[in-house]
Amino acid sequence: MPQGQPEVVPDDGLTTRQRRNRPLTIVHTGIGKGKSTAAFGLALRAWNQGWPVGVFQFVKSAKWKVGEERALRVLGASGEGGTVAWHKMGEGWSWVQRSPESSEEAAVEGWQQVKRDLAAETYRLYVLDEFAYPMHWGWVDTEEVVSVLRDRPGTQHVVITGRNAPPALVGAADLVTEMSKVKHPMDSGQKGQRGIEW
Amino acid sequence: MPQGQPEVVPDDGLTTRQRRNRPLTIVHTGIGKGKSTAAFGLALRAWNQGWPVGVFQFVKSAKWKVGEERALRVLGASGEGGTVAWHKMGEGWSWVQRSPESSEEAAVEGWQQVKRDLAAETYRLYVLDEFAYPMHWGWVDTEEVVSVLRDRPGTQHVVITGRNAPPALVGAADLVTEMSKVKHPMDSGQKGQRGIEW
Repeated sequence: MPQGQPEVVPDDGLTTRQRRNRPLTIVHTGIGKGKSTAAFGLALRAWNQGWPVGVFQFVKSAKWKVGEERALRVLGASGEGGTVAWHKMGEGWSWVQRSPESSEEAAVEGWQQVKRDLAAETYRLYVLDEFAYPMHWGWVDTEEVVSVLRDRPGTQHVVITGRNAPPALVGAADLVTEMSKVKHPMDSGQKGQRGIEW
Repeated sequence: MPQGQPEVVPDDGLTTRQRRNRPLTIVHTGIGKGKSTAAFGLALRAWNQGWPVGVFQFVKSAKWKVGEERALRVLGASGEGGTVAWHKMGEGWSWVQRSPESSEEAAVEGWQQVKRDLAAETYRLYVLDEFAYPMHWGWVDTEEVVSVLRDRPGTQHVVITGRNAPPALVGAADLVTEMSKVKHPMDSGQKGQRGIEW
């Protein structure tokens, strides 16, 4: 990516500094690889800036992304950059005492915590991994998500990943990338392998 | 990404284990964000497996990706995962004594080193960042790259990023993802910001 020169100067009454520090809502969607991986790559940049990073994994399986999790935990504990908090739905959210009765309930509990953290400005970067699914399935109301993100205080960046990102979310987001599958080894019978898929 | 069940079982005479450990050539291309970021995310998984990781940045500017570089250097030095070697064309490759006369010469020198490292099996994961460009521009011969990758020894995974990945490379790769731009803040005059763009 070359150094970004804006194509137009917006007429929004903001200074360049204000515009530069605008909180961003970022969406990685599509059926290709790299949606989550790129989100965790962004977390490296946030860590380097010394920002507190909060990861919320909206997936039931804890098998995947163990590499990213361990790396970000080691970085967060290194004292050289920002802190990292890693929350996993698959193991039960740490702030919930009892087991949720369904994935839907668990997803809603995750979103409630994200709302509390946004209100408290707990993190500077939020990785809401696979959060597109609960919206797509109607478990979490997309309009509410859009509204909460629009009104969030401070400069908190939010990255949401997952296939089937709802159109209303895409419409409200600042930066949207679609990852398309051109070719995948599983198409020709290759199984997932460690170090690559997890 | 759900757990991958292959759609077909290939008739290639390989055992599942052999197939599982097949070295992969991965390409991230397209005009959207996340090509390099996802590649560095993959490097986290490799690090977690204890693999030696070699990064070759085929870009002249050293400004970008400072976050990923620092994070991976800290991880590589942590003793908890694999090692990380980070080579930057922008600052002059460390193995070249004199300054290259052109970007083309520098890119060729980078590729020569990658070839030596592949032959020596120096790394288990190679991130050839922005390496699609020197191929696209004809500085490095794509057919030679394809041939060297096809014949590389051992189980060395290679990730190549950059817009305009040559068709011959895409054809030879095992996993290709195209990152498409759906929406970008620079379109509406937003400038790049730290923690997000670098």
